[in-house]
Amino acid sequence: MAFNLAPLQNLIDQFERMQGIGHKTAQRMAFYVLGLSAEQAKEFAKAITDAHTKIKQCSVCCDLADEELCPICKSNTRDKSVICVVEDPRDVAAIERTHEYKGTYHVLHGAISPMDNIGPDQIRIKELMARLNDDTVEEVIMATNPTVEGEATAMYISRLLKPLGITVSRLAYGVPVGADLEYADEVTLSRALEGRSLI
Amino acid sequence: MAFNLAPLQNLIDQFERMQGIGHKTAQRMAFYVLGLSAEQAKEFAKAITDAHTKIKQCSVCCDLADEELCPICKSNTRDKSVICVVEDPRDVAAIERTHEYKGTYHVLHGAISPMDNIGPDQIRIKELMARLNDDTVEEVIMATNPTVEGEATAMYISRLLKPLGITVSRLAYGVPVGADLEYADEVTLSRALEGRSLI
Repeated sequence: MAFNLAPLQNLIDQFERMQGIGHKTAQRMAFYVLGLSAEQAKEFAKAITDAHTKIKQCSVCCDLADEELCPICKSNTRDKSVICVVEDPRDVAAIERTHEYKGTYHVLHGAISPMDNIGPDQIRIKELMARLNDDTVEEVIMATNPTVEGEATAMYISRLLKPLGITVSRLAYGVPVGADLEYADEVTLSRALEGRSLI
Repeated sequence: MAFNLAPLQNLIDQFERMQGIGHKTAQRMAFYVLGLSAEQAKEFAKAITDAHTKIKQCSVCCDLADEELCPICKSNTRDKSVICVVEDPRDVAAIERTHEYKGTYHVLHGAISPMDNIGPDQIRIKELMARLNDDTVEEVIMATNPTVEGEATAMYISRLLKPLGITVSRLAYGVPVGADLEYADEVTLSRALEGRSLI
């Protein structure tokens, strides 16, 4: 459904460009904006430009940061001898929610995927290697996604790291806690069997 | 999941305030914004303020407009003797899509709903009555939603209009085209029986 009003149609188009937002949702969102007070609409627009201009990448771990260093790299209480390598800033947030991990992170911003023309140089592997020069790092935990691309990336990086004498580990595979065995796929189940532990 | 970065968290909160947008979607939308180019982000923010400042209500029919009059009220080819009364600007767009209706509209911006403290004075009934003074209008079609509130609004307005000698009609009720009779609710079916026509 096209509206005759250019400013409205333009806003709908802007929302619709987002992944996972269909035409109806984009339209509802545009009407939400029209329903805001002038003050609120200004704040909304400002939030977009602010987020875009103020958020950069941490110069050490490449996670999102609004300063030179992200809060984790800046902290004195984090264990700098362990680096957990993830694909995306959202993965950092997911691991932080466990409150179990006390080391630092490295965000690759993607995974090696020849199909999409993403090679080792397109993701932040160089930056990771640069962090390993001063002997503080003892272990690197590969926490890339359990997908073909994530696996390939983990393998590639582990081959670069092993000659340096750094321990490289990988997140455990297995059935998710709370899930139903019946619905687990075969690959996950066979990995869970392989990785079984004594009780 | 809370991010430590205020500008990012603020943007997520802004998206999350929209109806029907959950936390995960808001987060994905915020990351979409971070992934835009500086130019695109500026355009997105501008689309919001533009839509908000440029779009007002048509001074005749209360539909959305970016000038004094909406394109339909301004047009010479529309039949000014018929007014179709709807609750929302989106309803105008829905009826326009049929390409069947050649009259004008009146947008109430809501329906009478005592439960939500919305009385006749909170919606654009006064503005509708003002359009009926010069005898050009012969028929008013009530196209409010087929809900309790929409019905009550249609009844209320028709009682105001009948003493003025204006024909008041209501959209037909019945089974939607393409639907399965089996799944039609009883009220719709009995209305469809009542309103049956000869073939």
